[in-house]
Amino acid sequence: MLNAADNELLTRTDGDQPMGQYFRRFWQPVALSAQLPEPDGTPLRLQVLGEKLLAFRDTQGRVGLVDPVCPHRGADLYYGRNEDCGLRCVFHGWKFDVNGKAMDLPNVSPDSNYHGEMAIKAYPTREYGGIVWAYLGPQTEASELPEVPRLEFGELPETHRYVTKKRQECNWAQAIEGALDTSHFSFLHMPAPSVPSNANPDAPADEQRLAWIRRDPMPSFSILSHDVGFVVGGARRAGGNSIYWRMAHFALPSHSTTPSTLPGENYFGYTFVPITDTACWIYTYVWNPDRPLSDEERTQLQGGHGVVAEVGPDYLPLRNKSNEYLLNRMDQKHRTFTGVHGVAEQDAMIQESQGAIADRTREHLTATDAAIVRFRRTVLAGAKALANGDPPQAPLLHESYRLRSGSWVANEGTPFEEIMKERFGDPTGRMPAART
Amino acid sequence: MLNAADNELLTRTDGDQPMGQYFRRFWQPVALSAQLPEPDGTPLRLQVLGEKLLAFRDTQGRVGLVDPVCPHRGADLYYGRNEDCGLRCVFHGWKFDVNGKAMDLPNVSPDSNYHGEMAIKAYPTREYGGIVWAYLGPQTEASELPEVPRLEFGELPETHRYVTKKRQECNWAQAIEGALDTSHFSFLHMPAPSVPSNANPDAPADEQRLAWIRRDPMPSFSILSHDVGFVVGGARRAGGNSIYWRMAHFALPSHSTTPSTLPGENYFGYTFVPITDTACWIYTYVWNPDRPLSDEERTQLQGGHGVVAEVGPDYLPLRNKSNEYLLNRMDQKHRTFTGVHGVAEQDAMIQESQGAIADRTREHLTATDAAIVRFRRTVLAGAKALANGDPPQAPLLHESYRLRSGSWVANEGTPFEEIMKERFGDPTGRMPAART
Amino acid sequence: MLNAADNELLTRTDGDQPMGQYFRRFWQPVALSAQLPEPDGTPLRLQVLGEKLLAFRDTQGRVGLVDPVCPHRGADLYYGRNEDCGLRCVFHGWKFDVNGKAMDLPNVSPDSNYHGEMAIKAYPTREYGGIVWAYLGPQTEASELPEVPRLEFGELPETHRYVTKKRQECNWAQAIEGALDTSHFSFLHMPAPSVPSNANPDAPADEQRLAWIRRDPMPSFSILSHDVGFVVGGARRAGGNSIYWRMAHFALPSHSTTPSTLPGENYFGYTFVPITDTACWIYTYVWNPDRPLSDEERTQLQGGHGVVAEVGPDYLPLRNKSNEYLLNRMDQKHRTFTGVHGVAEQDAMIQESQGAIADRTREHLTATDAAIVRFRRTVLAGAKALANGDPPQAPLLHESYRLRSGSWVANEGTPFEEIMKERFGDPTGRMPAART
Repeated sequence: MLNAADNELLTRTDGDQPMGQYFRRFWQPVALSAQLPEPDGTPLRLQVLGEKLLAFRDTQGRVGLVDPVCPHRGADLYYGRNEDCGLRCVFHGWKFDVNGKAMDLPNVSPDSNYHGEMAIKAYPTREYGGIVWAYLGPQTEASELPEVPRLEFGELPETHRYVTKKRQECNWAQAIEGALDTSHFSFLHMPAPSVPSNANPDAPADEQRLAWIRRDPMPSFSILSHDVGFVVGGARRAGGNSIYWRMAHFALPSHSTTPSTLPGENYFGYTFVPITDTACWIYTYVWNPDRPLSDEERTQLQGGHGVVAEVGPDYLPLRNKSNEYLLNRMDQKHRTFTGVHGVAEQDAMIQESQGAIADRTREHLTATDAAIVRFRRTVLAGAKALANGDPPQAPLLHESYRLRSGSWVANEGTPFEEIMKERFGDPTGRMPAART
Repeated sequence: MLNAADNELLTRTDGDQPMGQYFRRFWQPVALSAQLPEPDGTPLRLQVLGEKLLAFRDTQGRVGLVDPVCPHRGADLYYGRNEDCGLRCVFHGWKFDVNGKAMDLPNVSPDSNYHGEMAIKAYPTREYGGIVWAYLGPQTEASELPEVPRLEFGELPETHRYVTKKRQECNWAQAIEGALDTSHFSFLHMPAPSVPSNANPDAPADEQRLAWIRRDPMPSFSILSHDVGFVVGGARRAGGNSIYWRMAHFALPSHSTTPSTLPGENYFGYTFVPITDTACWIYTYVWNPDRPLSDEERTQLQGGHGVVAEVGPDYLPLRNKSNEYLLNRMDQKHRTFTGVHGVAEQDAMIQESQGAIADRTREHLTATDAAIVRFRRTVLAGAKALANGDPPQAPLLHESYRLRSGSWVANEGTPFEEIMKERFGDPTGRMPAART
Repeated sequence: MLNAADNELLTRTDGDQPMGQYFRRFWQPVALSAQLPEPDGTPLRLQVLGEKLLAFRDTQGRVGLVDPVCPHRGADLYYGRNEDCGLRCVFHGWKFDVNGKAMDLPNVSPDSNYHGEMAIKAYPTREYGGIVWAYLGPQTEASELPEVPRLEFGELPETHRYVTKKRQECNWAQAIEGALDTSHFSFLHMPAPSVPSNANPDAPADEQRLAWIRRDPMPSFSILSHDVGFVVGGARRAGGNSIYWRMAHFALPSHSTTPSTLPGENYFGYTFVPITDTACWIYTYVWNPDRPLSDEERTQLQGGHGVVAEVGPDYLPLRNKSNEYLLNRMDQKHRTFTGVHGVAEQDAMIQESQGAIADRTREHLTATDAAIVRFRRTVLAGAKALANGDPPQAPLLHESYRLRSGSWVANEGTPFEEIMKERFGDPTGRMPAART
């Protein structure tokens, strides 16, 4: 549990809140590139860390991210004309480029100092991995800006990845806590108790893993820190003297990778971005470092698969709180633990059910919550340090974000660090480029 | 009128408010038994006195009423599995019985003191008369709990009663004030002025009563106190030297019976239960002590009849504020006083029109508001006494709630107490078992 | 720009706010006469300057405007019976006339002093020009009431005018500022840049005017004060040595007339009435002093034309914020400057986009905002004077509201006063009856 002050500190990211200021030192996903499909297209309204902004792709394909309020008389630039390398207000024709600089002020006398000085707030943007990222921190010389974190899916050709997002109606922190908590797999994502499972050595790999997870509801956790966060491993008994390990990363301030992947399988990860204090976007990516994703895989992902939710055209999950996630109580009795279809939807249901902002003062944590505790301690320390004048180093370590996680089966007694080396060739799961 | 402080005291029942604490000393209806139709069925979310709770019927048919927040990480137990005599959280499998006691904590180390100590808040429940009642007061030894009030409909076989409820979008107090005010029958529930009525001795009984009510808009009121409240009689001139009496009960804290019943006819009553300060459930019951209700009567009641509203599957009235009660201005001109169909709906319209919480500081009361004044004085005194450390006695007098009320025609000059004896065999309308 | 205090002073009109008190010294439109089409018809709920009121037309055709709360027990008189020259509460039959005086209190003892004293708040009303006006100021002897302003359309036979209204979801002040700002015509209401325009002398008049407006985005403004406000003229270059003048009136506290009318064409005007601080009604009128409007013109106006919006039966614009004004981005690229159909709708879009209450502290005004600056100064001075005990004189000058405005083409160098005389026969556009 947290005291009330730390719960506020952890969860509040709007305005001048310390955690929001901390987030602003890291590049943040603000849109999918696919949401701005063409030059001079429709601008996109968005909100991040409580701030309402407007994104637009200009004639040259550059993405602007600006304060949508025209400085003349406050009209909304969303209704503006996106044309000739800038966004023009339709009220009196004032026009601004992707850097926020006024390009044209047609009703302003030529000798006014408005010309040359007038500007709107604009944040630097980058496109990486099919995502538009923005740096929302203090204004900085372009040369001093950190670089976008080199999450592995972004380094691969577009053919090798699938990138999407889903909106969740709760605070960001309880959402990522759900991702870091690999112990809940023994319940939330399981079949109903009456459904048998098969852990025999000749059963399919998926069947075996499911049986191991189901039989051991109290995995033993180990945590190893790295430059930009930590990796947590949950160890459950498998057949014989074997241990089934499931490893997940946390990377500052709100990235995570998932624990199920065996060698050769697809990797999954997500980044949690506060919209307001009571809603977040979960950017979700699937990648295979070794081969393109197949059409079958893409079709499957579009319909929702694993941690990828089934979403509508606005990236809102089709099964959501307003329709009770289409929970079917007969399914809950006879087929699945929840009666809700989809791992992503099961996660959303439970995380949203914790309240708009989870009240951590009433919790009773257990040993299986080790990663949650470490996550909180890590980001609270970072936000407090920044508030005390000590900015985070992680934003400068963009190469350190090349991280993988997943599953492994090993003999009982093997230390976690050894497991990581066996599975990923590195004690904390860093790709070669991240190890220097 | 009330001063602003007393209006607050009267109407506020959430949290620690004195009136809420007073209500908590009395058993409260929290659901219809029919809303929890089967063991291990879907749990039911509810709210009472501002508190959000979860009801579930366990494998043995017992009803639990619990705080829906799992003490582990705050997930909502509504999404839980209702199985094997308890409700299991789907996040990590914590399971609780109808008394709130933890039955299983599968991710907690066997040597933790969580086992044996962990519990969620649970309130005692009873089923009586097709209603689930809860005691929401201070925790008490089971042996010291008061008993559910023995309202007559609950003593009869199920065949002899019809029990339902409707939601009203206003404070509880103005709703029960509408029930205790039998003078408004001369207006709200009447035909339009242009519709003739017939008070001739050879007219049907219903016609005669209606004519008497209509002709005398200023009945004379008498009130007699009893152990758990009071009975109010409104006297109107009937034909010749006759007086038409209409009697209604108030029983603490929020029960009422209706004034129209002549001997042999069905009895009606209701209990008003605050959901929040601006909404209430009106549990409504119809009973005949002498015979089963017929299929025709049940069908009629299901479609709305008298004080029973026509409701949808969620017990929300079909004609309600959001559709202006389907008020038809042509009907209002030519057929009914309001243009709204149904006595219950007419009551709801006028009570909701008084505002979310009626502002009693602007009222101008008259002699016909005598029962309203007595009601306020009674419950305000009770709430103030409890706040001063003097708990109410009425909750212990469960037998005293066997009360009937209705109509009577008698000679002019007969005192009210005599009228009550003629009609009910007792000066305050108590059934024999309530007279000891 | 304004400082925050003046922005509050300008925009807040509810309760005791100085601007609201200022508005209350002027007759206000509160409904269209057409909204109360028949004696004893359905009452009309309305809100003006934040106050919720009820209008009804009695048996004799008089319009009452009253506080809708019955003084007995607070029931809403909206549900009442409008009959026999009064409105009767359906709860207990209390009845009030258009002056608020109790006519019947049927459940009140004959010797009560309620009779004769009981009353509800009622405001004086007038009907003029198809609009119900109310005087919401301090109670005054009828003989001392000012008269309704003699806006020209109201003086004409009904055949010569078209009167309607539209609701706008923003503060009143930014709405009228949009009306007084004739410089935005060069942008907001123009074709897309790629659409050619024709200013040749042989082009149709409409085409020429459009071309002149479009070519000169920075008109030069002149302002002349008159008894009840001011007239503003915007001068743009036309062909050769000609200047194209567009004149608009502001009349206290919130009337305006439009700048496009050439002699012989229809005149347009509007009155802006705060509903709350974040919504207003825009009463809009079209008139021709010389002839009846044709059926074709009426049909065109009913479908939305010029500053007349296309509205539904509740006078809500069909193209509005909730449907993004049906903005079509292809139309915006290729056909119109905004992609939104209709001048009124383009205005609504931009004015609502300024926020519920425009934040004038962030503005950067230019010379073309001269009329906006003058408007603010005028009404701020009036409200401050009243707050200091100096009530406005304009309400007493009802004849001074006979004002016309429109367009004119004249030689370069002609002073504004001369332009007004040429076009309207008076230096400030007053009709003969207003000149005394």
